[in-house]
Amino acid sequence: MTPRRPSTDGVLAAATRIAGDVTRTPLLPFEHGGIRLWVKAECLQHGGSFKLRGATNRLLQLSEEEKAKGVVAFSSGNHAQGVAIAARRLGIAATIVMPFDAPRVKREATEAAGARIVPFDRATESREAIGARLAQESGATLVPSFDDVDVIEGQGSVGVEIAEQLGRSPDKVIVPCGGGGLSAGIALALPGTQIVVVEPEGWDDMTRSLAGGEIVPVPEDAPPTRCDALQTKLVSPLTFGTLRDAGARGVAVSEAEIAYAMAWAARNLRLVAEPGGAVALAALLAGKAGPVSGRTVVVISGGNVDPLVYAGIIASQATATVR
Amino acid sequence: MTPRRPSTDGVLAAATRIAGDVTRTPLLPFEHGGIRLWVKAECLQHGGSFKLRGATNRLLQLSEEEKAKGVVAFSSGNHAQGVAIAARRLGIAATIVMPFDAPRVKREATEAAGARIVPFDRATESREAIGARLAQESGATLVPSFDDVDVIEGQGSVGVEIAEQLGRSPDKVIVPCGGGGLSAGIALALPGTQIVVVEPEGWDDMTRSLAGGEIVPVPEDAPPTRCDALQTKLVSPLTFGTLRDAGARGVAVSEAEIAYAMAWAARNLRLVAEPGGAVALAALLAGKAGPVSGRTVVVISGGNVDPLVYAGIIASQATATVR
Repeated sequence: MTPRRPSTDGVLAAATRIAGDVTRTPLLPFEHGGIRLWVKAECLQHGGSFKLRGATNRLLQLSEEEKAKGVVAFSSGNHAQGVAIAARRLGIAATIVMPFDAPRVKREATEAAGARIVPFDRATESREAIGARLAQESGATLVPSFDDVDVIEGQGSVGVEIAEQLGRSPDKVIVPCGGGGLSAGIALALPGTQIVVVEPEGWDDMTRSLAGGEIVPVPEDAPPTRCDALQTKLVSPLTFGTLRDAGARGVAVSEAEIAYAMAWAARNLRLVAEPGGAVALAALLAGKAGPVSGRTVVVISGGNVDPLVYAGIIASQATATVR
Repeated sequence: MTPRRPSTDGVLAAATRIAGDVTRTPLLPFEHGGIRLWVKAECLQHGGSFKLRGATNRLLQLSEEEKAKGVVAFSSGNHAQGVAIAARRLGIAATIVMPFDAPRVKREATEAAGARIVPFDRATESREAIGARLAQESGATLVPSFDDVDVIEGQGSVGVEIAEQLGRSPDKVIVPCGGGGLSAGIALALPGTQIVVVEPEGWDDMTRSLAGGEIVPVPEDAPPTRCDALQTKLVSPLTFGTLRDAGARGVAVSEAEIAYAMAWAARNLRLVAEPGGAVALAALLAGKAGPVSGRTVVVISGGNVDPLVYAGIIASQATATVR
């Protein structure tokens, strides 16, 4: 049998399925360059990122037998929190494989949601192998962070809400991209809308994959980035294929552009955006996202950032822009 | 003729009047102490505080002749921005009398909205006298920051939205209080709801006025506070009378409790709250707001804070809570 592919119908069904379990995050107007645009503030989601959506959509479709055996996920933090919160709500045991260098704010929040955390070394161990081993040992279900039809369709509920809140489909959505689950889901939710995915410089594998027509990995010598949420080394045929078919294109932003966007969001939107959550706004502010209109939506996908890191970025930007 | 007093009917009419000109800010769920509460995120209002509501309600009711002569307001910042934004939208000239020590972020935003700023020395000059003189010279209409029926009723639209978003009246609303325009408006919007107003320690004149049954001013030797938005030295019979008749009570919070709440909001709500905007959350977190339930609403009234001040508070709280 042909494996199911993520679809617009699937996204619409997911949005209905999870509506009672996720926050309908606000679509807020803001001005930039004399144009009124919109921000979808997914940093205000329960757990601080969109990840609760896909996790909830996946977990709601487990059988009772599967629920009893628990779930396993590997994540640097936001997917971990999404799975942990969804699992707790449904009474499912959750084990999270998490890198040692994950932001403390994310690790603590995942623990607070009642999940068991299995740390690993990002440099020497494969989280996929550990996660698969744990799943095999316990019979637990692995919940992938993006390479999964139900997860992608759950994330797509962001796009469904955008269209409802705007009263029509937007012309363009600018969206952060790690593995591509959120952007692929939004692309399916909003056929006809131009999708611009944004990644940190050096980690722009989806951008290069879309430009070249085939999946290319992040190079081994990729530079460091503050965007822990977007450090995906290889996208999946599901997310890449969906975005390619939707005619999406990608752009990359610098660490300086990301820091500027985080400070801009605090000052002008009064929203806390984490580095990975701010890349789409960074692309807009840097003029890299192409023409915009009153029907352009920027997604801030997460707001989980260690306080000292955050304070440092806000302070450095304030000093840099003293007039 | 008896002067009109603010009323529930007036608040409902104001909410309808201004609906197209203000952001319907989200009511977001959050957990504290195992209870799910709600935050009304008025820091996400256009201009970064609730002040746009009262200003818009006032300005929309000016005659064409009055509009042509412009408006004057005195404000340390949030009311200034509210009046400036509302005036620009309606094509009205705005002059703002603002203390020299107003936060730069507020002064700049007020200028950016096209208002003329007249600075004054908070220690030696009376902003009321300057504002009245300017109004007299130009024939401009003075827009008070809280001692005005239309302004109070406009702020009350916050309460109307809360009831609509919650699907019923809340049991309790915990709300920051400077002159009392916001809290009085909410009290009128939500008869039967317990109103808890929160002020910084030493500046808790509404709290002491409500406890004593008559208006008492802030003492001359009041301590410094980071809450520039709440440095009102004397409340008005309109706001005090409304809150007294509603059975409201007040509490005071310390500067340390306010800083903790600002950091808590950044980390757990991903919202930027300014010191004065965070006092109600501070009272909740400090256990000073009395019993709470799933129908308790905390208002974050503003999010305009100088970046360096904000970064310093976030960093200091992060260091203080390292485990």
